[in-house]
Amino acid sequence: MSPTELLLQHRSIRKYSSEPIEPNLLNRLLEAGTRASTTGNMQIYSIIVTQDQERKEHLKKCHFNQAMISEAPVVLTFCADINRFNAWCKVRNAEPGYDNFLWFINGAIDAVLAAQNVCIAAEDAGLGICYLGTATYMADEIIELLKLPHGVVPITAITVGYPAETPELTDRLPLEAVVHYEEYVPYSTEKINDLYYEKENLEFTKKLLEENKLPNLAQIFTEKRYKKNDNEFFSEKFLKTLTKQGFM
Amino acid sequence: MSPTELLLQHRSIRKYSSEPIEPNLLNRLLEAGTRASTTGNMQIYSIIVTQDQERKEHLKKCHFNQAMISEAPVVLTFCADINRFNAWCKVRNAEPGYDNFLWFINGAIDAVLAAQNVCIAAEDAGLGICYLGTATYMADEIIELLKLPHGVVPITAITVGYPAETPELTDRLPLEAVVHYEEYVPYSTEKINDLYYEKENLEFTKKLLEENKLPNLAQIFTEKRYKKNDNEFFSEKFLKTLTKQGFM
Repeated sequence: MSPTELLLQHRSIRKYSSEPIEPNLLNRLLEAGTRASTTGNMQIYSIIVTQDQERKEHLKKCHFNQAMISEAPVVLTFCADINRFNAWCKVRNAEPGYDNFLWFINGAIDAVLAAQNVCIAAEDAGLGICYLGTATYMADEIIELLKLPHGVVPITAITVGYPAETPELTDRLPLEAVVHYEEYVPYSTEKINDLYYEKENLEFTKKLLEENKLPNLAQIFTEKRYKKNDNEFFSEKFLKTLTKQGFM
Repeated sequence: MSPTELLLQHRSIRKYSSEPIEPNLLNRLLEAGTRASTTGNMQIYSIIVTQDQERKEHLKKCHFNQAMISEAPVVLTFCADINRFNAWCKVRNAEPGYDNFLWFINGAIDAVLAAQNVCIAAEDAGLGICYLGTATYMADEIIELLKLPHGVVPITAITVGYPAETPELTDRLPLEAVVHYEEYVPYSTEKINDLYYEKENLEFTKKLLEENKLPNLAQIFTEKRYKKNDNEFFSEKFLKTLTKQGFM
C-alpha cells in the first residue's frame, strides 16, 4: 500500500490481541519516529516505553481507566524534553536558555511529529494505534509514575498492538471546512449549517442523541464530553505542571 | 516505496523548482492531513494555503526572511482553531467552554498531526517539504497577515514544492538517547559524552566550529542559534498572543 493510501485508511484501534510486539519491530517504529523533522535537529523530546503489566495498570489510572491501556502490549508516552539538551550544554560549558514557554512549544511539536511517524510505521507493519489525549490532563501523575525530571512534560501517548477489531472509517468535515485560501474566511451561520450537515445527520449521531436525550450533537460535546468546568480545571492543572517542570 | 521506508528517508528541502503543484494533488495532500487522529473527532485546527506571490513575500518577512518561503509554490500554515467549533456550538445553542489553555494544547496537537500527514503525502508524491519553526515566534504578525480571528493561533508552517536539491540524510542521536524503558533514566556526564560523540565528531560539526570560532557544538546553539535573551523575548511574545486570541 502506498504511504498516502495508508494515511487515508487510518482508524484508531481500541481493542488489541494479546500478541506482543517483537523488540526489533518496536525499534524500527521508534527509529521511524526519530526521522521526523525536529527543531534545529535538537531532538527535544523523549519517548517512554511502557510494557510492564503492573505499570500499565498504574498508567491506566492516569488515563481515566481506558481499558485499552492495560490490554495493548505497548504504551508510548511522548514528552517535550529539554532536560537532555540542557545536560549536554552544562557538560560543554554552554549556558542553556531553554527553560521557557517557547521551548515547551518547540518540544511539544517535536514530540507530536515523532509520535505521528511512529503511528504510521506501526500501521505499515499491521499494528493499530490510538492516541490518548489524556496525557496532558494527568501530566502530574504521569510525571510521577514515569519519573520524568525537570524539563520533561508528557504531551501525548499512544497504545500500540495488533488489532482485535476492524472499525469503520470515521467521518470528517468536508475539506473546505478546515482549509482557507490566502485569508481566513469567517464562518456564517449558513456556512456552519452546510459544513456540519453530514456529521449531524449520520445514523451514529442520531443514536447518540437518543442515548443522551439531548437535542443536538454540539450539546453532547459541551454538556457531556468536554465540559467547561472540567476544561478550566485541567487548564489550571496543566499550567501548574508546566511551571513545576520549569517551562513558565 | 513502503510508508516506513519513506519515513526513514525524510530530508527537509529548502530549494524548490518553479513547477507549481496541481490543485488536485494539493487537495489530496490536504485530504491526507484530515485523516490524522484528532481530539474527539472535533478537527480543532485550520490550514491556511498561501500561493499568491505577493502574500508569500509578506509571509517571508514573518519567517525571518527565509528565501524558500517565496520560492516554494505553496506555504501551508497549520493553526490551532477553536473558532469554528465555537461558532457551531453557538448556532446550536450549546455553551462552548474551549477558550482556555487545555484547548490550545489540544488544538496544537491536532494541527501538528495534520501537518505531518500532509508532509508524508507530499513526499510520497515526489514533493519536498520544510517545517518553519518560526510560526510561533512571529504568531502575531502571521495572525494579522492571514486574518486569523479570535480562537485561532499558528502553530507551525511548511513550504511545499518540487525539490531542486538532494541533501544528505541528517544525523540523529542514537535511538537510546531518546527512548527510555519503563522509567526515565537520568543522563550522567559519561552517558552524555557517549550519546553526543558521533554528532560532535561529524565533519559538518568541525566546519561549523571553525566558521563560528567556538570550542564546541553546544555553544553554537546557546551563543549563536537559540540565545537565552531571544528565547525569553519570544516566550513572552507568544504568551501575549495566546492571551489576545483567547486561550489563557
